[in-house]
Amino acid sequence: MNAPANTPHLRREIPAGFLDALKSRFGDRFSTAQSVCEHHGRDESPYPAMLPHGVVFALSTDEVAWVARHCHDHKVPLIPYGAGSSLEGHILAIQGGISLDLSGMNQVLAVHPEDFTVTVQAGVTRKQLNEEIRDTGLFFPIDPGADASLGGMAATRASGTNAVRYGTMRENVMSLKVVTADGRVIETANRARKSSAGYDLTRIFVGSEGTLGIITEVTVRLYPQPEAVSAAICNFPTLDAAVQSVIEIIQMGVPIARVEFMDTAAVKATNAYSKLSLKESPLLLFEFHGSPSGVKEQAEVVQDITRGNGGMDFEWAEQPEDRSRLWTARHNAYFAGLQLRPGCRSSTTDVCVPISRLAECVGETAAELDQARFPYTIVGHVGDGNFHVLMLLDPDDPTEWEESELLNRRLVERAIRMEGTCTGEHGVGLHKMEFMVAEHGRDALDLMAALKQAFDPHNILNPGKIIPPA
Amino acid sequence: MNAPANTPHLRREIPAGFLDALKSRFGDRFSTAQSVCEHHGRDESPYPAMLPHGVVFALSTDEVAWVARHCHDHKVPLIPYGAGSSLEGHILAIQGGISLDLSGMNQVLAVHPEDFTVTVQAGVTRKQLNEEIRDTGLFFPIDPGADASLGGMAATRASGTNAVRYGTMRENVMSLKVVTADGRVIETANRARKSSAGYDLTRIFVGSEGTLGIITEVTVRLYPQPEAVSAAICNFPTLDAAVQSVIEIIQMGVPIARVEFMDTAAVKATNAYSKLSLKESPLLLFEFHGSPSGVKEQAEVVQDITRGNGGMDFEWAEQPEDRSRLWTARHNAYFAGLQLRPGCRSSTTDVCVPISRLAECVGETAAELDQARFPYTIVGHVGDGNFHVLMLLDPDDPTEWEESELLNRRLVERAIRMEGTCTGEHGVGLHKMEFMVAEHGRDALDLMAALKQAFDPHNILNPGKIIPPA
Repeated sequence: MNAPANTPHLRREIPAGFLDALKSRFGDRFSTAQSVCEHHGRDESPYPAMLPHGVVFALSTDEVAWVARHCHDHKVPLIPYGAGSSLEGHILAIQGGISLDLSGMNQVLAVHPEDFTVTVQAGVTRKQLNEEIRDTGLFFPIDPGADASLGGMAATRASGTNAVRYGTMRENVMSLKVVTADGRVIETANRARKSSAGYDLTRIFVGSEGTLGIITEVTVRLYPQPEAVSAAICNFPTLDAAVQSVIEIIQMGVPIARVEFMDTAAVKATNAYSKLSLKESPLLLFEFHGSPSGVKEQAEVVQDITRGNGGMDFEWAEQPEDRSRLWTARHNAYFAGLQLRPGCRSSTTDVCVPISRLAECVGETAAELDQARFPYTIVGHVGDGNFHVLMLLDPDDPTEWEESELLNRRLVERAIRMEGTCTGEHGVGLHKMEFMVAEHGRDALDLMAALKQAFDPHNILNPGKIIPPA
Repeated sequence: MNAPANTPHLRREIPAGFLDALKSRFGDRFSTAQSVCEHHGRDESPYPAMLPHGVVFALSTDEVAWVARHCHDHKVPLIPYGAGSSLEGHILAIQGGISLDLSGMNQVLAVHPEDFTVTVQAGVTRKQLNEEIRDTGLFFPIDPGADASLGGMAATRASGTNAVRYGTMRENVMSLKVVTADGRVIETANRARKSSAGYDLTRIFVGSEGTLGIITEVTVRLYPQPEAVSAAICNFPTLDAAVQSVIEIIQMGVPIARVEFMDTAAVKATNAYSKLSLKESPLLLFEFHGSPSGVKEQAEVVQDITRGNGGMDFEWAEQPEDRSRLWTARHNAYFAGLQLRPGCRSSTTDVCVPISRLAECVGETAAELDQARFPYTIVGHVGDGNFHVLMLLDPDDPTEWEESELLNRRLVERAIRMEGTCTGEHGVGLHKMEFMVAEHGRDALDLMAALKQAFDPHNILNPGKIIPPA
């Protein structure tokens, strides 16, 4: 696989003695082994690994602060590492330095069921969290495909299938504990549901991808497990009919919990990978949350709308285990897609547009992709106007990579032209940097650069990400 | 009325020719008249007026940018002014300079009903907005007591009675047009419902109180007017019984649209001011939004909970005009309170705590206030854990002011001790600056100061607010 063009990989010099000091402070929890550095120098993106000089496995905020001070004093890059499931090259050590693995910080610290909040260490994953709070009757809804860490999810402003009802990490992070570039420890907020007390530090760090500070604890909102849940599958004759239905459902104000789109190729891949027998045409997966009568009412409205667009009868997943199977299959759509072309590597995209432009954006995109020389799937959190294209590329054919990059670029430009964004939930990492000027304008990026400079004057925190050079 | 102690009022020098240039650029839309400067140098706080050197009445973003460049070049303070309804001294020209009145920028620019968004100029007020979009079937829910401007509401991160269901300006601002300190014009985001494309500039400016940039346009989310609405009043034997009911309602996850608390004194004041005949005991005002059956279901759950806490039977306000009368009365609770003591001036506070601590916080506060030498009322957006105390002070008795400041300080310290905030929705302005260290810690404030320095290096934008001197 060729790396995307023009990827910089200029390792900074590491001062003498710098690594030795880490070794003596952390012992076995510091490693410079090739295999460890390889593992921490790649994510799920198509980029080749770019290795850090070493990896620290931190167990406490104090340890993180110590590492930050050490890196700050010696101007060495420092890259927080959660579950390694990012998709756009976020964690690649393009200037070398230290990868700070937070997966050992995996304690649930404080559950406040009466306030619907929980505080966890950054390495706790979303599945672990939901396991540990199950008996409170509450749940945490944000669900990117991977079993990502809460720290990583905050850092990328992640969302997932529940965002249409419950919001994204932007809305659901209440407070963060953050280690600054120079090793100070702050709390960004308290546990009040709302506050007007000064600048919104929480949301400055949410989505900052490790470039402004290192998140070591996360306090998030929880929600009552709904009294009633039902899920249904609805097949459509065309992609457009499915997307049009979503637009009408959202515009009717139905408080739907999930509405996910899969194109025919994604359905086929999922059937094969997850041993399901979904009818192989464009489909929507719905989930309704509420009281028993509320769920019934929502489903009726949605059925009326889908019928009006030529949708087939709902197939219901009534039992919890059936729903679980269905949503697991949806979360595995990425891995399922990879199996469509054995030996392929993938490039995945992620745009989000206003819902009124969704049908047009998906339609134009599919028409272009139909002409490509490689297979693809489209899936999406379409209730938010957010969809993904998975392009399945021959790793030995550089022209496929080039074509996928061209199509990706055209898709992003289309989304921005439609008042949308180059990334709805994956983040910028390396792969979306080239679109930041088109999306934000140079003046807005200059403000982002000023913020970065103010918070990280030595440019040690995940350097070379988010903001393209001026 | 004595000003709060230690209020700085050191007008900066204005360079020769600076005001003349404004006069020749803006003609009649620039004024240095004493009455105009008086009007723009005070808000609804108890502070005495602190006058700007002049006032510009801007009509476009370009004009705002011109003024910003002029002030930046000459290092003259610049204070955006919306409706003048802030409560904590936000807009006082403590260092003199130019007040930039945006009330003439009052156009609704673009309604996108299919996407549930609207873009307005900063001077559009919340009531004007709802009038202008009425025929779309949508509404904008954020409702501070005053008919504030959208720009001011974004700048203070305002909320109101609907926040428990619909969120605050933090959740509902999608994008801003902002003029930077040096006169550049940026858009903070696009109209996609979610994005992970870089730092969250929108939420950096929301709540920044005019200190980081000047908001000239605001894009906010709209909501479908609910199919069914019902409102009810429930009286309680004690304050604690009312607050305890709210806690249980929130903990049950009832999607209530509004739940407002008034203590007996506030009820009496409202009856007198708004010519109502509410039963004079602690009460809750409820509003339910949803489908007809959903509203009925919510109301039944809430009735069960209130009865269990000794609440009386609901009195229903079924007709739109009855509901409108009730909520107008609630919004006028501030002015009603002032009438309890003719000739008084008021000091109003605004804390917010996790819901589990609300009964304790309100109870301890009321017990202390019962010992004060002046009357008071308590009202609150209690579904969020947010409540206000209105203290009615004799303007000729400095000891009353001192006592109110002491009680305010004790209340804020109590809220912070309970993991809450010194201001749930009013903002910091001048009056809450002294609590910023206690709430955030010096290191977090240093990050805020670094952000301020990065965005406004000459410290011209509403200087001397939010961040106390180190």
